[in-house]
Amino acid sequence: MTKTPPAELALIEQIRQAFPTPRRATLALGIGDDCAILRPPPAHDLLVTTDFTLESRHFRRDTHPAHAVGYRCLARGLSDLAAMGATPLAAFLSLALPHDLPQTPSGRRWIAHFLSGLATLATATDTPLAGGDTAQSPTDTILADIVLTGSAPTGTALRRSGARPGDHLYVTGSLGGAAAELRIVLAAANPSAKTPNHIEELGHPHLYPHPRLHQGQTLRRRALATACIDLSDGLSTDLAHLCTASRVRAEIDAATLPVHPLATHQPDAFTLAVHGGEDYELLFTAHPETRIPSKIAGIPLTRIGTILKRNSRQPQITLLQPNGTREPLKPGGWQHFAEHKQTPSPTNGRPTRSVIKVTK
Amino acid sequence: MTKTPPAELALIEQIRQAFPTPRRATLALGIGDDCAILRPPPAHDLLVTTDFTLESRHFRRDTHPAHAVGYRCLARGLSDLAAMGATPLAAFLSLALPHDLPQTPSGRRWIAHFLSGLATLATATDTPLAGGDTAQSPTDTILADIVLTGSAPTGTALRRSGARPGDHLYVTGSLGGAAAELRIVLAAANPSAKTPNHIEELGHPHLYPHPRLHQGQTLRRRALATACIDLSDGLSTDLAHLCTASRVRAEIDAATLPVHPLATHQPDAFTLAVHGGEDYELLFTAHPETRIPSKIAGIPLTRIGTILKRNSRQPQITLLQPNGTREPLKPGGWQHFAEHKQTPSPTNGRPTRSVIKVTK
Repeated sequence: MTKTPPAELALIEQIRQAFPTPRRATLALGIGDDCAILRPPPAHDLLVTTDFTLESRHFRRDTHPAHAVGYRCLARGLSDLAAMGATPLAAFLSLALPHDLPQTPSGRRWIAHFLSGLATLATATDTPLAGGDTAQSPTDTILADIVLTGSAPTGTALRRSGARPGDHLYVTGSLGGAAAELRIVLAAANPSAKTPNHIEELGHPHLYPHPRLHQGQTLRRRALATACIDLSDGLSTDLAHLCTASRVRAEIDAATLPVHPLATHQPDAFTLAVHGGEDYELLFTAHPETRIPSKIAGIPLTRIGTILKRNSRQPQITLLQPNGTREPLKPGGWQHFAEHKQTPSPTNGRPTRSVIKVTK
Repeated sequence: MTKTPPAELALIEQIRQAFPTPRRATLALGIGDDCAILRPPPAHDLLVTTDFTLESRHFRRDTHPAHAVGYRCLARGLSDLAAMGATPLAAFLSLALPHDLPQTPSGRRWIAHFLSGLATLATATDTPLAGGDTAQSPTDTILADIVLTGSAPTGTALRRSGARPGDHLYVTGSLGGAAAELRIVLAAANPSAKTPNHIEELGHPHLYPHPRLHQGQTLRRRALATACIDLSDGLSTDLAHLCTASRVRAEIDAATLPVHPLATHQPDAFTLAVHGGEDYELLFTAHPETRIPSKIAGIPLTRIGTILKRNSRQPQITLLQPNGTREPLKPGGWQHFAEHKQTPSPTNGRPTRSVIKVTK
């Protein structure tokens, strides 16, 4: 064996130490073999989701603290599990680092903080890291891909496709906060831009979103929801996904939208709430006779609209304005390969466009 | 909805079409929701592995046909399942493409051929693609990460850690072919280099490796092996992993090593067989009284050495030379973050070094 372990082995060892694998019945074998071995509870389905976290697409090293990048990397996957009402079983991290990163003190700090942020949320949600892959990045960009596995009793996982005409439409928490904080975070990199000083009081909906695992699990366990999706791409886009999967249309009552306090400070608050992505709240539907609690574990559930019968002469989503008029609502969240305005400045996976206008 | 679907949706649709999801009992829900839903057979463990395929680390666009890149992307993950004796359940593909790629005819051809290569092996091994993620690559490099899930009856998966002193050491197929073909592939990009014309006859151990799923499953089902690992990093490195996990040492009988015909044409054939990576054969151990068949499904199994009791005064691996002398064998496979000679020219994840000397 070589005397000083090669840097890749050192990275794997660093990951192992950041994520001690507690013995548990559902994880028979963690990091260190060709595969991890999971043992889902009997009569449970297994849920799987994967999410990229790519530098300069989903974060910027100069504006996003490494701790938050690691936290968000895991949060994205956990939110997908939350949307199905699943309980996390294990996460897998594929991580490619630029050649120089592990060789400088600041680079080593970045790695340690990234792993620490990921471990913080992993511990808080009881999600062991059971494996993954490491590589040298082919460029100077940091590349991560997170895989989340979870379980739910057979046949009970919430899906996008169960909404029926007449169902009520609900959202957890509030909307637009992530887009608002993203704007503030990007502006902070620009010394001439003003940064509000109330961000601490209002939480960090962009840097530290809360995957709604408990809420999703409660909706599933109590059979409250007919369909569910997480708000990663923005309300207008994700509601369109839900409507397409359920073959229905929807109407949103604009007056009822819960706008995040951080967004209300922005001139385009409503736009941020409707089109801004990455709030990682849950959007769900329920039969009109189902009694939906006003809160689950302290997080408000707000009715924001109604599911309607599909009709080729009607837009998929309409917005009922406070003055009683209706207008079509087109999906406005991000699309990675959208053909307009591709600037290299990252806005968390979405091309810079008017919705999330970058302040710099 | 927008009239022309955005390019990301088009890519997802292209992926869906390349991988029709047949209905099957073990896959309750494929592409299109927040998570896929797997339903492993009752009383089975679930196995999970992830593997990067990064341009200019694991392949080069100018030397590696897109079809082979897609095929190898899946082969890497399947080989990890093979090493545990598992049966594939489903694959998940995370794919980040440079912004321009889907917008040029040659780029669209690349994507189509990549997906076709992946689909070819997916069909051959009955591995449905059940989900993944898409993103725009932050640079001009193509980035892929493959996740494989598989199943094996509870508690029966082969591991690295079961080898015991006295066990015999075996390998499937032959060694060094992938490293030899890689050299030929890289040389072909250099017009001044000679390319042997016998490559077609000898198969494509680098471009189209065969994951030994059937062999691994047979070893597991018939309880023939005490430990198993796949040869992704090279015999010297992967045997060291197996020895470390099993707390044993090993001796290889040099005269018995099955060298791939493609490697025998190279001046350093033995080095390629011992240190060259990515042969994706299985290295396994068996109790000395276990009768190991000479072939499984046409692939030879060759005894290449013996497992010995660990001894702090002895190297972890020794090589018994044909003249009867013994010498230590140090791990010589690739290490992503090795601190020496990092050239941007890709050699399939390993830094260019003397073992796999690049011809150009």
